[in-house]
Amino acid sequence: MYTVYSVDHSLYCAKLRLVLRHKRLEWRDVPPPGGTGSADYLSLVPTGNLPALVDGTLTLTDSEAIAEYLEEKHPSPAMLPSGLVPRALSRERSRFHDTRLEPALRLTFSNTDPRTRRPDEITAAHAEITKRLAALEILLKAPLSRDQLWLGDCGIIITCEWLDIMVEYGVLPTLDMGPEIIRYRAQMQEFDAVAAELVCYLPHMHDWMDSKHR
Amino acid sequence: MYTVYSVDHSLYCAKLRLVLRHKRLEWRDVPPPGGTGSADYLSLVPTGNLPALVDGTLTLTDSEAIAEYLEEKHPSPAMLPSGLVPRALSRERSRFHDTRLEPALRLTFSNTDPRTRRPDEITAAHAEITKRLAALEILLKAPLSRDQLWLGDCGIIITCEWLDIMVEYGVLPTLDMGPEIIRYRAQMQEFDAVAAELVCYLPHMHDWMDSKHR
Repeated sequence: MYTVYSVDHSLYCAKLRLVLRHKRLEWRDVPPPGGTGSADYLSLVPTGNLPALVDGTLTLTDSEAIAEYLEEKHPSPAMLPSGLVPRALSRERSRFHDTRLEPALRLTFSNTDPRTRRPDEITAAHAEITKRLAALEILLKAPLSRDQLWLGDCGIIITCEWLDIMVEYGVLPTLDMGPEIIRYRAQMQEFDAVAAELVCYLPHMHDWMDSKHR
Repeated sequence: MYTVYSVDHSLYCAKLRLVLRHKRLEWRDVPPPGGTGSADYLSLVPTGNLPALVDGTLTLTDSEAIAEYLEEKHPSPAMLPSGLVPRALSRERSRFHDTRLEPALRLTFSNTDPRTRRPDEITAAHAEITKRLAALEILLKAPLSRDQLWLGDCGIIITCEWLDIMVEYGVLPTLDMGPEIIRYRAQMQEFDAVAAELVCYLPHMHDWMDSKHR
């Protein structure tokens, strides 16, 4: 049984749960004591990051470092493909998500409340997201099969849900997701772990958005 | 012989060269045709990222995805430790650098020119860097031996040099690097690959800084 420090609406916690679910591992979610910025939490997790995985005496942070750890410890079902190039493509996809696509989405989070929204920041965020979605459309054409769920998919799945909800609540103008992204998302939702996580996570996303629109 | 798309002053290109040098691989640096934002470069590298590694028909982006690829393709000398936990700690260190420490440094880059510097942004950057250095001081006490150069070290080595130079040029007020960071940096500089890269890279850092102070 793993312990995972997490908060309900955290995107990277949902990303990690896709790995835990797909590998059929048991875990319990625990809120960071005192919140992520608290001295209590920093004494346990010096980076203050969420999620953090506790496995015996090891406390490990960063969703991707945790994912690689779980992949090495529980290699079946594999979430990195076999073969040098497919593995590299899965890792490139993970990193594109964590350092390009999600940071573009993140620009919207401080602008969800319509009372404090800054139109210039929304315009900049929309442009940045559009650029990253265009890159994603091309990256998804790389030769990486979709018959299994890879580590590189987990972040993208969750971030695309956030992009939908940002448009639905009127935070962002309409976004142009290309045909490859649309096909990809439909394929990803056929994995049991993805379907199960979205059933649990989508209500938390809506709760968070509603709290900003009250 | 690998081809690496790079620009002289890029931090992540220097990070990748530490891997290439330590593994004694041959490569040639090529500037992105037309610059990183150009249609020509985007047709080769859809993410527009630097560095990008070209290996036959594979074009791979993101310094860390490339590093893991090179580690799997050329496992000797190893740049990930053996053992589940040390490997996880090296990857946590890589990710802490790429998503926490370097983004804090990055806040200073648009403020290097004293004519356009914004004091409020410098204050915010200094606070963020200070927070990350405090976390690094603790992370470096993790049980990860320093008898070899790990992937997780490569980014931190370069970013610490940038932090020094930002203070030296008066962009940032003095920074407090803890005793563990100071000891760590001295140990890292004993690796041939690190010494060789710094001899090549430091002049490019200074050239770039000088161009902002002319």
